[in-house]
Amino acid sequence: MPKSNPGHFFEDFRIGQLLRHATPRTITTGDVALYTGLTGSRYALYSADTFAAAMGLPGAPVDPVLVFHMVFGKTVPDISLNAVANLGYADGRFLAPVMPGDTLTATSEVIGLKENSNGRTGVVTVRTTGTNQRGEAVLSYVRWVMVNKQDPASPAPEPVSPDLPASVAATALIPPPPLAPGSVDPVLSGSPYAYEDYQPGERIDHVDGMTVQEAEHQIATRLYQNTARVHFDALAQASSRHGRRLIYGGVVISLARAMAFNGLGNAAQVLAINAGRHVNPLFAGSTVYAWSEVLDRAELGGGWGALRLRHVATKDKPGGSFPGADTGGEPDPAVILDFDCWAAIPMRASLA
Amino acid sequence: MPKSNPGHFFEDFRIGQLLRHATPRTITTGDVALYTGLTGSRYALYSADTFAAAMGLPGAPVDPVLVFHMVFGKTVPDISLNAVANLGYADGRFLAPVMPGDTLTATSEVIGLKENSNGRTGVVTVRTTGTNQRGEAVLSYVRWVMVNKQDPASPAPEPVSPDLPASVAATALIPPPPLAPGSVDPVLSGSPYAYEDYQPGERIDHVDGMTVQEAEHQIATRLYQNTARVHFDALAQASSRHGRRLIYGGVVISLARAMAFNGLGNAAQVLAINAGRHVNPLFAGSTVYAWSEVLDRAELGGGWGALRLRHVATKDKPGGSFPGADTGGEPDPAVILDFDCWAAIPMRASLA
Amino acid sequence: MPKSNPGHFFEDFRIGQLLRHATPRTITTGDVALYTGLTGSRYALYSADTFAAAMGLPGAPVDPVLVFHMVFGKTVPDISLNAVANLGYADGRFLAPVMPGDTLTATSEVIGLKENSNGRTGVVTVRTTGTNQRGEAVLSYVRWVMVNKQDPASPAPEPVSPDLPASVAATALIPPPPLAPGSVDPVLSGSPYAYEDYQPGERIDHVDGMTVQEAEHQIATRLYQNTARVHFDALAQASSRHGRRLIYGGVVISLARAMAFNGLGNAAQVLAINAGRHVNPLFAGSTVYAWSEVLDRAELGGGWGALRLRHVATKDKPGGSFPGADTGGEPDPAVILDFDCWAAIPMRASLA
Repeated sequence: MPKSNPGHFFEDFRIGQLLRHATPRTITTGDVALYTGLTGSRYALYSADTFAAAMGLPGAPVDPVLVFHMVFGKTVPDISLNAVANLGYADGRFLAPVMPGDTLTATSEVIGLKENSNGRTGVVTVRTTGTNQRGEAVLSYVRWVMVNKQDPASPAPEPVSPDLPASVAATALIPPPPLAPGSVDPVLSGSPYAYEDYQPGERIDHVDGMTVQEAEHQIATRLYQNTARVHFDALAQASSRHGRRLIYGGVVISLARAMAFNGLGNAAQVLAINAGRHVNPLFAGSTVYAWSEVLDRAELGGGWGALRLRHVATKDKPGGSFPGADTGGEPDPAVILDFDCWAAIPMRASLA
Repeated sequence: MPKSNPGHFFEDFRIGQLLRHATPRTITTGDVALYTGLTGSRYALYSADTFAAAMGLPGAPVDPVLVFHMVFGKTVPDISLNAVANLGYADGRFLAPVMPGDTLTATSEVIGLKENSNGRTGVVTVRTTGTNQRGEAVLSYVRWVMVNKQDPASPAPEPVSPDLPASVAATALIPPPPLAPGSVDPVLSGSPYAYEDYQPGERIDHVDGMTVQEAEHQIATRLYQNTARVHFDALAQASSRHGRRLIYGGVVISLARAMAFNGLGNAAQVLAINAGRHVNPLFAGSTVYAWSEVLDRAELGGGWGALRLRHVATKDKPGGSFPGADTGGEPDPAVILDFDCWAAIPMRASLA
Repeated sequence: MPKSNPGHFFEDFRIGQLLRHATPRTITTGDVALYTGLTGSRYALYSADTFAAAMGLPGAPVDPVLVFHMVFGKTVPDISLNAVANLGYADGRFLAPVMPGDTLTATSEVIGLKENSNGRTGVVTVRTTGTNQRGEAVLSYVRWVMVNKQDPASPAPEPVSPDLPASVAATALIPPPPLAPGSVDPVLSGSPYAYEDYQPGERIDHVDGMTVQEAEHQIATRLYQNTARVHFDALAQASSRHGRRLIYGGVVISLARAMAFNGLGNAAQVLAINAGRHVNPLFAGSTVYAWSEVLDRAELGGGWGALRLRHVATKDKPGGSFPGADTGGEPDPAVILDFDCWAAIPMRASLA
């Protein structure tokens, strides 16, 4: 038997199966610097120890989106090495801040299995948990992937569909440490807008565009130790359906979040991932844009509110016309990401 | 009103206006590593804690050129988002060392305004100051940019031209900590040449060449959180005058300084920026070369001297013929940067 | 005389000559992060402080291969600036762990000289030592390079051929700190295979492929402060034999080692470099694959064994057919690296 990892096929998964993933990861200020270089993120909270200290933290924490990618990357060899498609996310919650120097491990539990009618693939749903060196869970989320069967003749398992919330309840969000009144400097944060300034239904064009090079997405995806070969092996991909390397969907999430600074500068901190779909593939050379819609909002106490945001990323089509906003008619092929999350934002009284 | 940042237009600026810029920045060893990876800088002072300690510092400081880019990046959203051109720098002085872990904020004061005769643009001059977490100014410099008017019909302001020195006076330079005699190892620094070995008028070809890829300049410019879209959005740039992404001029300054190691290995530390012009644009795929001329020199005391250096960077033309040295005749289109700075260099008695 | 470094020519070297190299280097967690981003390395030992602590270390050490590149980079300006070819390595031993924050300097002693019969070049053999800030040697290796003569008329030196071992003796390996029984978690390390599971003669296909972009190899090579211009100057290279930038061979070593994780996850730590040849050049756009053969094995005590591994890297040809394994017939032009090293691996009793 080869010693290289063959990954798991659909028939290898069992409901209740617990997978501990390889390669724990100490996240350092080096990772943070490279993340800034790859995304251009400008949220003051992740950029400056002083700004974070004014918000009651010991220093600048690690951007939850980077934490997500790090944890996600660990799961790839066990969950999605033989995946056909990454279908979606649900019920993702950030449970504790991650500081540079923290070490994360990841585990996943199989909570859903359903063979497809073609008999060649099936959908596997897992709940993944990221845990720090003190054994505290820092992140929990559900994702489902379509995975190949190794042997199409193997019997279909009893289908199990997990019960997943359409979105994380506002009451389930873990708010950041309480803010003293006037403790957030809106000049340094780059935005004068507080919780009260955003209304459900409001749409924001994030204006900026970012053209992605092969080197950039490869460096990012390797930083997350996500080694799915579709992102790296141009020779193998030449004979694939797309004919070229596919950009890891997490790269798009990060770009959308980084660009969302321009209009949502105080909504730095993702608290929950409600849903997410990589609607179309992205390839190097395309330019990514983003726009957002405020879906909901909730007061969290302690000087904080939360905005439920829909971040839509597009390729080669600026966000000003809000591509994909119309749910009727043909879907817009420029849309590459439809991401639904809760982000913390200070109440107006928390701003200086 | 859109919540994304529209930037300031020419008529938004007032003499004496003070702009505090967003996104303070903690500079870490991660930023330093990435800067080394992007520039190949080999100055021992910024590379090794031990070498810096021998020079009386607590550890390797952050290269002042990186400090400059970090501070500059902060100013872009307020000063040059609607700029047509970055016209020049003057009177730049590095006032205190920046160590990894320090957090910088940036402020700018408007000190010059002059509408252009076309009525559609004007020149804004600002003095920008970078300040650390203890409130100490670490950098002060002047730059002027040509900025669009939002409404060409708006009245021209009273023209104000700031009084700027042609170069920083040697007496205004802040020298590094005093050097004990024989404390600098010229083998480790990579150069046997001390202050006394350089004469005004001397020209040095830095020999090496560096071809710049899109991914490289984008990562660098994002690291500085400079998000001017001309550097990142290939789709928008396709319909611009240049038809493609423009490389941030600071990338060229860094490459020129990194290449200047080869001939100026002991002149690691920029103390002042006298002037700087991005003479021609640079695009990915071109190869950058550099040569330098010693314009002046001055003894600083404490075992230090300073060289006033003209660094000239070229594209696709090696520096051996000193392109741009002749000030008569047609300017050489290969010249992309003409940069005038003071750099500290040990006196011969300071070398081991 | 120009102040830029002309490098040494063949006739500049003397047997017994000791060269201290410029630019000492503090290796930081920033360098480690960038190395992860450039290689995708997943060995738990270099990824997580907690995993390293369970193995008796104060935290995650720096990957010895990164240490090698850092030390190698220092030697280039003195040894191989005028080199025609990097011919081989021998007798490389890692002597002490390097932790983030350590500062390395490098020295080389000339131990072999032999002019080629063409009279225009000669082979220089040096023993290079990397030393930390406490004066402890951390790495010692021999390499030989073909170097141009400056003046073909200069007399040939007395030929001296150093006596080099075909491979480092197992008894000369410095084992890692002793492992308590059951102290290595094979789930976290990503491999259930211990020393006893590998047999001499066994071949392992590492499956994954990595397409290399210009930006990636340039950033890596600059991170190592290796500024050999063949890797960076596309304009000068356009008129070279290859017509384009050559990828630093160390980039291939790193990719091969990173891909070897897939099948050799517990053999994280290179203890010795027995031999290494860059068989064919690599250029950007090619995809690198790797396979390995177990050449030998030895028990080291303290819960450790060592595998002598042949890592073969190929370009644009997957490793599954083991290209280059057959030593008869024509060599396979897809082979780019043939690397022979010892790597530490826990004994079965050391695994949890």
